[in-house]
Amino acid sequence: MTQFPKTEQNRIKRLPKRGHYDRETIYRILDEALICHVGFAENNQPYVIPINFARMDDTIVLHGAKASRLLKHIEDGNPVCVEATIVDGLVLARSVFHSSINYRSVVLFGAGQIIKDENEKMAALEAITEHLIPGRWSEARLPNRKEMNATSVVSIQIEQASAKIRSGPPGDDEADYALPIWAGVLPLQETASRPIRDELMTQEIPAPKYVAKYSRKK
Amino acid sequence: MTQFPKTEQNRIKRLPKRGHYDRETIYRILDEALICHVGFAENNQPYVIPINFARMDDTIVLHGAKASRLLKHIEDGNPVCVEATIVDGLVLARSVFHSSINYRSVVLFGAGQIIKDENEKMAALEAITEHLIPGRWSEARLPNRKEMNATSVVSIQIEQASAKIRSGPPGDDEADYALPIWAGVLPLQETASRPIRDELMTQEIPAPKYVAKYSRKK
Repeated sequence: MTQFPKTEQNRIKRLPKRGHYDRETIYRILDEALICHVGFAENNQPYVIPINFARMDDTIVLHGAKASRLLKHIEDGNPVCVEATIVDGLVLARSVFHSSINYRSVVLFGAGQIIKDENEKMAALEAITEHLIPGRWSEARLPNRKEMNATSVVSIQIEQASAKIRSGPPGDDEADYALPIWAGVLPLQETASRPIRDELMTQEIPAPKYVAKYSRKK
Repeated sequence: MTQFPKTEQNRIKRLPKRGHYDRETIYRILDEALICHVGFAENNQPYVIPINFARMDDTIVLHGAKASRLLKHIEDGNPVCVEATIVDGLVLARSVFHSSINYRSVVLFGAGQIIKDENEKMAALEAITEHLIPGRWSEARLPNRKEMNATSVVSIQIEQASAKIRSGPPGDDEADYALPIWAGVLPLQETASRPIRDELMTQEIPAPKYVAKYSRKK
């Protein structure tokens, strides 16, 4: 199944033509987004926490300290919502009303569980590291027993998901096109600048290519 | 009162030294962040929606179509959580365990209400436009009666809030400093590239300075 079914929960109600339900579109956005925003509720009080993550097949994996409230909540199998958004630009229409943002966002729903198996846990940590900066896992000092014991890793099954995408130029009211107002798109992107070497490095090591040439684009 | 009190809800439990509760720090992050992520719950099912916004004094204002589920939920006075995060860089420690992200995030809690007064509603729309792109409001074609009627604007009183900030170089275990691994910070920032003029512009108008020189930094 490459499409997620449309349900009351994931269906894009506002501007439905911007909605996408296919795994390819949804997963590409998740894989490019740097961080995600995890929502959970306790007694109907909502919480949203920013966190780094990775997608592994049809799951989202998160890690954190054993004592983390968020992770405990997910371990207990409570419903969670994961959102990730990439902003691509500001859309300057002639009218305020039609001004907008070009973006690609995903909202997904699922429930989680703790990953106990040591190999699976290590694989999830590798995915999270490689999601942030591909190439780093094979070079960094890997987690030891003590660090593994201090870390919780959870896996959230993606049960429902949808993407919402806006792209392209502004769409103004017919009468507004004649107005003497600049209109267009201002592209925005997350860019890396020159790596800052840790002053406590004891050896002369150049920044690896995966650092010096870093880009979120796939 | 310039500090938000620490409560069970907003207190930073993990790595408390990264926590900040003063309005100045919290509001500077909110004002620099491009978008926010709004969490709400229905029958304990969490939802997180990305949306543009503005801060006006001790409130967050949001706008959208009248029929929006999110806005209706907020209008009804239900509890909401608003989160905004600016990523400043990747922190490459020698160990995976100490690798991290430099970021500035805010999580706040409050309840909302609809803005009915026409002047207040217009002021909120101005704040939202100017939050995205300062200078645009005085140049764009402002909302007319029909557009105002189609738009809902809500205001969320910031009742509790905290910021969490990580900055600076990696902190590794003592024994790891001797490892032959590049360590440091890769700075990341949201940058604008060359404005793309709408092909449907009927006049030769250069991109205004607030577009050509756009930056999120204050």
